[in-house]
Amino acid sequence: MDEHGITPDWQRESRIGIGEAVYCAGKNAEQIGRILALAGERQQSLLLTKLDARRFAELDAAAHRRLDFDPLSRTAVLDYGLPTAVPARIGIVCAGTSDMAVAVEAQRSLTFHGVSASVIGDVGVAGLWRLLDRLDEIAAWRVVIVVAGMEGALFSVVAGQVPGLVIAVPTSVGYGVAAGGTTALHSALASCAPGVVVVNIDNGFGAACAALKLLRVFASA
Amino acid sequence: MDEHGITPDWQRESRIGIGEAVYCAGKNAEQIGRILALAGERQQSLLLTKLDARRFAELDAAAHRRLDFDPLSRTAVLDYGLPTAVPARIGIVCAGTSDMAVAVEAQRSLTFHGVSASVIGDVGVAGLWRLLDRLDEIAAWRVVIVVAGMEGALFSVVAGQVPGLVIAVPTSVGYGVAAGGTTALHSALASCAPGVVVVNIDNGFGAACAALKLLRVFASA
Amino acid sequence: MDEHGITPDWQRESRIGIGEAVYCAGKNAEQIGRILALAGERQQSLLLTKLDARRFAELDAAAHRRLDFDPLSRTAVLDYGLPTAVPARIGIVCAGTSDMAVAVEAQRSLTFHGVSASVIGDVGVAGLWRLLDRLDEIAAWRVVIVVAGMEGALFSVVAGQVPGLVIAVPTSVGYGVAAGGTTALHSALASCAPGVVVVNIDNGFGAACAALKLLRVFASA
Amino acid sequence: MDEHGITPDWQRESRIGIGEAVYCAGKNAEQIGRILALAGERQQSLLLTKLDARRFAELDAAAHRRLDFDPLSRTAVLDYGLPTAVPARIGIVCAGTSDMAVAVEAQRSLTFHGVSASVIGDVGVAGLWRLLDRLDEIAAWRVVIVVAGMEGALFSVVAGQVPGLVIAVPTSVGYGVAAGGTTALHSALASCAPGVVVVNIDNGFGAACAALKLLRVFASA
Amino acid sequence: MDEHGITPDWQRESRIGIGEAVYCAGKNAEQIGRILALAGERQQSLLLTKLDARRFAELDAAAHRRLDFDPLSRTAVLDYGLPTAVPARIGIVCAGTSDMAVAVEAQRSLTFHGVSASVIGDVGVAGLWRLLDRLDEIAAWRVVIVVAGMEGALFSVVAGQVPGLVIAVPTSVGYGVAAGGTTALHSALASCAPGVVVVNIDNGFGAACAALKLLRVFASA
Amino acid sequence: MDEHGITPDWQRESRIGIGEAVYCAGKNAEQIGRILALAGERQQSLLLTKLDARRFAELDAAAHRRLDFDPLSRTAVLDYGLPTAVPARIGIVCAGTSDMAVAVEAQRSLTFHGVSASVIGDVGVAGLWRLLDRLDEIAAWRVVIVVAGMEGALFSVVAGQVPGLVIAVPTSVGYGVAAGGTTALHSALASCAPGVVVVNIDNGFGAACAALKLLRVFASA
Amino acid sequence: MDEHGITPDWQRESRIGIGEAVYCAGKNAEQIGRILALAGERQQSLLLTKLDARRFAELDAAAHRRLDFDPLSRTAVLDYGLPTAVPARIGIVCAGTSDMAVAVEAQRSLTFHGVSASVIGDVGVAGLWRLLDRLDEIAAWRVVIVVAGMEGALFSVVAGQVPGLVIAVPTSVGYGVAAGGTTALHSALASCAPGVVVVNIDNGFGAACAALKLLRVFASA
Amino acid sequence: MDEHGITPDWQRESRIGIGEAVYCAGKNAEQIGRILALAGERQQSLLLTKLDARRFAELDAAAHRRLDFDPLSRTAVLDYGLPTAVPARIGIVCAGTSDMAVAVEAQRSLTFHGVSASVIGDVGVAGLWRLLDRLDEIAAWRVVIVVAGMEGALFSVVAGQVPGLVIAVPTSVGYGVAAGGTTALHSALASCAPGVVVVNIDNGFGAACAALKLLRVFASA
Repeated sequence: MDEHGITPDWQRESRIGIGEAVYCAGKNAEQIGRILALAGERQQSLLLTKLDARRFAELDAAAHRRLDFDPLSRTAVLDYGLPTAVPARIGIVCAGTSDMAVAVEAQRSLTFHGVSASVIGDVGVAGLWRLLDRLDEIAAWRVVIVVAGMEGALFSVVAGQVPGLVIAVPTSVGYGVAAGGTTALHSALASCAPGVVVVNIDNGFGAACAALKLLRVFASA
Repeated sequence: MDEHGITPDWQRESRIGIGEAVYCAGKNAEQIGRILALAGERQQSLLLTKLDARRFAELDAAAHRRLDFDPLSRTAVLDYGLPTAVPARIGIVCAGTSDMAVAVEAQRSLTFHGVSASVIGDVGVAGLWRLLDRLDEIAAWRVVIVVAGMEGALFSVVAGQVPGLVIAVPTSVGYGVAAGGTTALHSALASCAPGVVVVNIDNGFGAACAALKLLRVFASA
Repeated sequence: MDEHGITPDWQRESRIGIGEAVYCAGKNAEQIGRILALAGERQQSLLLTKLDARRFAELDAAAHRRLDFDPLSRTAVLDYGLPTAVPARIGIVCAGTSDMAVAVEAQRSLTFHGVSASVIGDVGVAGLWRLLDRLDEIAAWRVVIVVAGMEGALFSVVAGQVPGLVIAVPTSVGYGVAAGGTTALHSALASCAPGVVVVNIDNGFGAACAALKLLRVFASA
Repeated sequence: MDEHGITPDWQRESRIGIGEAVYCAGKNAEQIGRILALAGERQQSLLLTKLDARRFAELDAAAHRRLDFDPLSRTAVLDYGLPTAVPARIGIVCAGTSDMAVAVEAQRSLTFHGVSASVIGDVGVAGLWRLLDRLDEIAAWRVVIVVAGMEGALFSVVAGQVPGLVIAVPTSVGYGVAAGGTTALHSALASCAPGVVVVNIDNGFGAACAALKLLRVFASA
Repeated sequence: MDEHGITPDWQRESRIGIGEAVYCAGKNAEQIGRILALAGERQQSLLLTKLDARRFAELDAAAHRRLDFDPLSRTAVLDYGLPTAVPARIGIVCAGTSDMAVAVEAQRSLTFHGVSASVIGDVGVAGLWRLLDRLDEIAAWRVVIVVAGMEGALFSVVAGQVPGLVIAVPTSVGYGVAAGGTTALHSALASCAPGVVVVNIDNGFGAACAALKLLRVFASA
Repeated sequence: MDEHGITPDWQRESRIGIGEAVYCAGKNAEQIGRILALAGERQQSLLLTKLDARRFAELDAAAHRRLDFDPLSRTAVLDYGLPTAVPARIGIVCAGTSDMAVAVEAQRSLTFHGVSASVIGDVGVAGLWRLLDRLDEIAAWRVVIVVAGMEGALFSVVAGQVPGLVIAVPTSVGYGVAAGGTTALHSALASCAPGVVVVNIDNGFGAACAALKLLRVFASA
Repeated sequence: MDEHGITPDWQRESRIGIGEAVYCAGKNAEQIGRILALAGERQQSLLLTKLDARRFAELDAAAHRRLDFDPLSRTAVLDYGLPTAVPARIGIVCAGTSDMAVAVEAQRSLTFHGVSASVIGDVGVAGLWRLLDRLDEIAAWRVVIVVAGMEGALFSVVAGQVPGLVIAVPTSVGYGVAAGGTTALHSALASCAPGVVVVNIDNGFGAACAALKLLRVFASA
Repeated sequence: MDEHGITPDWQRESRIGIGEAVYCAGKNAEQIGRILALAGERQQSLLLTKLDARRFAELDAAAHRRLDFDPLSRTAVLDYGLPTAVPARIGIVCAGTSDMAVAVEAQRSLTFHGVSASVIGDVGVAGLWRLLDRLDEIAAWRVVIVVAGMEGALFSVVAGQVPGLVIAVPTSVGYGVAAGGTTALHSALASCAPGVVVVNIDNGFGAACAALKLLRVFASA
């Protein structure tokens, strides 16, 4: 713990294979700045999530210079030497354009850890042919991160068609009963397709972490 | 109002095209018996819904003799001359065997009013081929009553594929977050497929009534 | 899918009779602009929904020039030749002035697809005479889109009086227990009047789509 | 407090005009028996509410002899001299036969305190003519206790038509979204008709108490 | 209905004793202005509720000139000759300073209809002596409007102590589990004190309307 | 872990001052029997909670012989030498007779650990004099366990009047909005009286444990 | 579809690697019997889940003879030649004895598909030493199925300590706010440990399916 | 009550040992200013809570001069002579940097009443070593205020390891299912560790008050 009461878990990567990341919602600019400074002292790369454009603007010039910030996904990367990203038979499927922000959060989280993954967008079930057209590609993946809001029917349809593990990421896209993402979340959890696993609403980062853990533990055969 | 405070709405059929029906949950055997007697005095056919086997058993011998009771759908028919049921390009699609009770409630409600409708069962999206095999048949219907519990993905998939009006009937089939049917209900309401309309959880009767209203008003061109 | 991962479902109209529409909430100006460009390339008319005034203002000049934007209903129309709207015995009933925005969303969605529909406003049940005065007019419609917030008593009263199919559109108008529209939604679903069907809160577009599907499938007798 | 830790509030009547009543749900037969004994020692009449038939059966012979038990409304009266019930321009309106149990709870609570009130049943809004037929009678009452489950549209319709105070008693009658009575409750609270007041779900006793307080304080002009 | 689809219920006062009032949340300035104009044509006084300062500022100069606006209670009065307010043994009790806005909404609604009522503030149960000090005064009222947020314990304590009818107005004051007012609402509905009646969260206007109906119907003995 | 996968935390008492207890809901008779056997082998006294009469009846004769079972509070004690219970300025206040089961669970949990505590029952705020009569006694306690269901107003009233720490135990007593205890729970959490702390619904055992921890850590001055 | 409307998805195993299983809740004995018959015709092994003892007892003698039924986990196996189960570095961790039923459902689902997995029970965080004692063993697994009810703290603690993928199975064990399992579910979804994935409440079968999919797709390198 | 209807409970400290504090959410600047003036007249120190920076800025110059305002914790102190803060074996443990605002609210509330308490930050269970490193320090405290958002696993882990009373303060930190703090709240209430007590979401002040009550009543042995 430094004098501001901040204790990053720098040992996390060696313990569980995922590096410390900084959840920025609920932290003020001063707190985020201090964490960046601690990382800087160690030359430690860092991933920042849920960093909205307004909070990013409040950070100081040094932070702006060092961070690779993406406003759509609200992620930023502090890069002190990151691995080159290579494919790993992991991919992302995204129901609608409104869900793309969360899909990109997952994609950038994977990239940060050395895994490149493509995103197949706009394949919501209202026009099923769009998904069926891409099914062979998706069926080749070992892990399929499916990002969907509204009623989340895509989770079940994909999981019933392909052998890879479906990690469902419900999004807060929608209104009325879908507002906030609970309908998509429950839809994923109650899926009639066996073996769907689920992360929190809008948690593209968490889905990426699960995929990364899998790569690591199955590589260490 | 008779002396027991019961006032059936015998004028309903002439007004809106759907006859009075008796919702039996929350009524005791004496109250149901009295309504049957009132109908008997008028030689009026009646549909009884949500009549469980235990309550049916408590009714008297006269009721048992006159009623055609189906325990699966918890419906009973008091028949003082009903129209012969004929097809009308209306059909019922049912996600799983557990949803069949509600599908049959819809089917029997249609039959009571002179419309025969077939039920296509066990076409949940976990095995999409089962639905795709039947799609041509379903696409010929003007009204498609879709009955599904759990995550209700079937509503969106059907509605995105066929031109008929999809009336979604969410069911209370499921456990955990799906218990009670709220997940399927919200899934139907938040569907990404345009034009899905929804009735209350387990309300096969209501879906049938909507279909019947359509037949009548569109016939009266 | 274009290079931005956008795949409009241009085949939707031929498949289900409703054209692709653009749900604008959750899309940024760049994404909406790109969809407009794709439509422009095909000379394809488009309906945009849930487009608030601030997002509309962020669109570029070309979009402003081509779009017919209505701030009350948050809809915009991209017109590359639309059918003339004609009456079809479909109408809209609206409980209060606060619900008018959603009623107009339904009306403009119908107009876009070639159906003109009048709106009868301010007939909430607190002053029942206002509704009873218009009942003959409403009873002539085949489909009645009823738009109401707060406690949504209007759904049941209309549905019990007229033969047309009532499509209930609950609105988010209200405060306290009515905030967000759940009370009106549940009121519609639990209606004691048989055959009411329901769409998501504030979903005037969805109600219109259901009506349009009906016109098309019953026309194709 | 007696040696069993029971302290009836015998002073309640003089303080607020309503006598102590015994809420029997959650009390075992021994506890109810002890309260009856305490009342017997004082020759104190008592009203028991939410006393189901099974619990009543567990009470001892002395209790069975002294109590006037009504299984429909789950009320019992211990009578050590009650006032003769007289009319007071208070009445009860009840949406459906399934709501009658709660309406009778209100009626018997009034009778216990010396007020006779009639119940008008089966006037749900699905068949509006039934209510309109009785409107003159209802308009003469100073307090109208309206009992309704499902979507509770009756609360708003009555309150918009008559000058008396509407006390809404939502009931737990219904299924799906109406299960448990929350939809009717919220409908009453969000009523577009001004001045509706509401009590807890199934609380016919509470509505009667409110009416009784009004009679007493307005009599003491 | 005028050409803007607005149909005020001018007959309401003669029917139920409460004049038409304008619920301003969800109406834009143009709609409110039109209603004011319709009232002006008839020289009809009007009460406006839930009119926040920003919406008020958007109204035109004529409206600003004619309206008596109170930003705390978000009410405005259009006065074409109102009755002088006189006391009627009705009063308002308010738990904390944060609840005062809703208490004043009730007070101004009463004044508009010719009834003056005093407000006793800051008598929350955390310091019970403050309430006990004022109990004699409150016990003289026939109707006691109790306004409280957070846990709403004040409803039960007052109702257990005084003979007048307690109309509970739960407020949205509070945070955490109390946010939005549901805790206070449920507390009022579940009160262990018999005869408490309840209106919607923050609905000071509704409580006043109920009191006014009582005055009128009990005066017409 | 024994061969049945059961690993009691026998070290708990030395670590935190509270012995291992057995939560019996969700355990079958075989599992409970095995835990009793493990305790018997060590001559270890045990407290069993949430043990309903039916499950107790399923235990074997040896268990019946050794256990002191109380059906009201659903607790049982396996006694291999327990400390004599002595007073410690801790007491229990209980709103109504229906809440007594939970109050006794707290009392027996204290007794098991060597602390005797009296229960003051039936002091709900509907009749405030009952509480005020006992206030001096309660004000002498250092910890006041307050047990209440329904609206839970008692928590705030007691906490505003006495210096001891109020541990609120909301109960599931009530119906309608109070069903299940959430209203009382939220009432306790949102209390306007500062310093109220809360345990789970019906968790008399937990309240006792908190009190016991306090006695121990403050004794070790 | 056979003549009873039943269409098992026999192709599922070849498509996604998990065989058809029968969810028995909501199916009557006749329906389950018919499915067993269909499987028998094909000599197809089947796993039955959520089959409670009462429903099992209603099945016919042939079913009783062929099924290996486990009442604790409510699973049954129809065995027409199953693979020998072998270890695969997958294991199950279980918080308390009450959670064991769900843990065994996961274990038997794995066994059915040829994977043996051990269960480490009773390692809830209230006694952290029990978990820490077993940490080396758990850290060797590639997939860790963690089963916990109540507050579900175990999910985060395990996931923060070991490299394997944690699949959280929240259970319905608990009372008050934990009743039904929602608290444990939300705890898993909101975990501060990165990469936890979650299945529905009590869905041990689903967790096993996810693990099986992983084994299969990562084996097919 | 002064002429603005404000009645501070100046007697609270003598009655329950905690001075009157001012909850500023929902109060406007004028109301807060008036309370400060009343305190100034009595030379009474005051603690203000939930005072956000915008409201603070609206106060007048006199208030700005006298108040010690902390924007992170949204607290301000009006100091007319406060006791020197001394340690009392009470401490605060905080899961993450985002929870620090609430931890500091607790700390400053203690300081105001003469108790100094240190805060141990950033010890969330995702990196358990951080907590274990500080366990000896925490085990020496008599009261441990634990502040955590998201899934709140820290409450159970700490409570299972140390003898002091754990007062859980759930925070609104988190998103998706954790938004608003309900998940952390329920996690605390459902803790498997015995004796955890809980205050409202974000209520650091309330936790401090409970600790202060304990110090006072246990000192008065």
